[in-house]
Amino acid sequence: MKLSSLGEFGFIRRIAAQCGSDPALLLGIGDDAAAFRVTDGKVLLATSDLLAEGVHFDLAWSDPFSLGKKSLSVNLSDIASMGGTPRFALLALAVPKDLPVEFLDSFMSGFLHQAEHFGVTLIGGDTSASRGGLFITVTLFGEQYSDKIVSRSGAVAGDIICVSGTVGDASLGLDLLRSGIKEGWGVRRHLDPTPRVALGTGLANAGIPSAMIDISDGLLADLGHILEASGVGAVLDLESLPLSEAFTTAMAGSGDTLLNLPLSGGEDYELLFTLDSAKLAAARMAAEAAGTEITVIGRLTAEPGIVMNNASGVFLNKSGGHDHFAG
Amino acid sequence: MKLSSLGEFGFIRRIAAQCGSDPALLLGIGDDAAAFRVTDGKVLLATSDLLAEGVHFDLAWSDPFSLGKKSLSVNLSDIASMGGTPRFALLALAVPKDLPVEFLDSFMSGFLHQAEHFGVTLIGGDTSASRGGLFITVTLFGEQYSDKIVSRSGAVAGDIICVSGTVGDASLGLDLLRSGIKEGWGVRRHLDPTPRVALGTGLANAGIPSAMIDISDGLLADLGHILEASGVGAVLDLESLPLSEAFTTAMAGSGDTLLNLPLSGGEDYELLFTLDSAKLAAARMAAEAAGTEITVIGRLTAEPGIVMNNASGVFLNKSGGHDHFAG
Repeated sequence: MKLSSLGEFGFIRRIAAQCGSDPALLLGIGDDAAAFRVTDGKVLLATSDLLAEGVHFDLAWSDPFSLGKKSLSVNLSDIASMGGTPRFALLALAVPKDLPVEFLDSFMSGFLHQAEHFGVTLIGGDTSASRGGLFITVTLFGEQYSDKIVSRSGAVAGDIICVSGTVGDASLGLDLLRSGIKEGWGVRRHLDPTPRVALGTGLANAGIPSAMIDISDGLLADLGHILEASGVGAVLDLESLPLSEAFTTAMAGSGDTLLNLPLSGGEDYELLFTLDSAKLAAARMAAEAAGTEITVIGRLTAEPGIVMNNASGVFLNKSGGHDHFAG
Repeated sequence: MKLSSLGEFGFIRRIAAQCGSDPALLLGIGDDAAAFRVTDGKVLLATSDLLAEGVHFDLAWSDPFSLGKKSLSVNLSDIASMGGTPRFALLALAVPKDLPVEFLDSFMSGFLHQAEHFGVTLIGGDTSASRGGLFITVTLFGEQYSDKIVSRSGAVAGDIICVSGTVGDASLGLDLLRSGIKEGWGVRRHLDPTPRVALGTGLANAGIPSAMIDISDGLLADLGHILEASGVGAVLDLESLPLSEAFTTAMAGSGDTLLNLPLSGGEDYELLFTLDSAKLAAARMAAEAAGTEITVIGRLTAEPGIVMNNASGVFLNKSGGHDHFAG
């Protein structure tokens, strides 16, 4: 079925019929704006993430269901990194006219599946034709008490640095996809990342992190954002970086060429956070409750910059993460 | 200057330095999500609008300053049509790498100029490269007491129908632009529409409209949205449609070919609202306070559909407005 036969309003009606409800929602899809109540005493968290065809995803390997999930997941990850509880979403889609309705249906199934799993209700958005590929912008709203929100700027020298899960998988997966391999752990991690929502809110509710961010641009780049916002530096112990079995196996087969990925590869969507070392036991309990591993990978220093050390020596960070406007 | 020399983070820092502040804002640009307080007792209104190059605008005639203003204005119009007060915005931009920094600077000046004029603070968003033209998604947050929010669904048979300003100008302007004429009232109305924020909030605060919408798809299509949501029909008096002097002049020169524009041309961003006729005097006072003309153009009926009448007879609506997915 062609999108033109369904029509813009037919498409919107179809989505609206599949959206859930929420006691805090006054007006969802179908008016000029949505309206909802923020829980008494809490403040609103809001984030927008844009996924562009040919930049963030390639339709040669992105299946529509996973793409729908991922377009919400990257936003869930942002709310998680603030320590917030995700609540409502808006979805803006610019769609090439020749995209089959079946693609969009599957995309929406993935999006709504992920929304339901994380307790998020889709409440509106916009649709448009596109003359230059598929563009997806999701705006996600979360909420949290103001004194529980975790920003990037609260880190202090002496804090330890933790990361959730494993790093490097998503960028390994992207490399594999580019070389024609469409399956495996890394590939799944790239196409369908897991936002660490339970961990983020659990840590925040217990008042544990001094600063937190999700790894979208790459560990060094995102750590750099915390360091810049907090006015501190860091020492990283490269031997302690948590790597998946799949990643270690791939590295054993390819020598040093993959060493850079856990540091500079983006899109792992793990949480990177800093904390007073006295709170490490509490952090481990919160991580266990969330079902996610956490690993201490370094500590913060008063001196700016990132010093990295491993068995073969000590070196200073020079490389950055992904810059969308780089030449 | 090329965008690649400024870099994504350079661009974001440049914008952040120009954004204002607001007492309700806890975290603005520069974290994973923005955080703000909703005024006690009010609920949040949220809307996203997407502008796609080659669909909503053409860089052959859209100057960047006006485009920046318009990308916020279309969202301001949505919040206005709910009777809300606009407060905060997120901006997601997908930018072709060869777009000059000067273009983006001028775009942002227009956006921030309009934001300041309407008391809106830019608090975050996203930036990305684009391989298929410029894509702009703005998410705007407003607020209002829940019992003052005006939806599309409250209209009742017997209510009268009013519209603000004049209709047909923006689509006339688009026709002129397409024929190579780059100046004049209609062209300005298309490139730089005026969102009727003071009128929308004024009417809502006084409890006047039973339903309200902004004219983005075209008067008939947008009236149709109210009729569908409210389960009523309408009789429109075509002789009473408010037309600008520029439109009347253009019509005099071109005969009947422009007759369709006030009914089916989109993007006037005027407010279309219904009300109990006993409140018309109050509506006129609210309009005068907002500095905007309003005109009664018809009334609601229990019978579904839109009946239109003028000096030459009575006819039924068949045409619709713009459908982005139409073939």
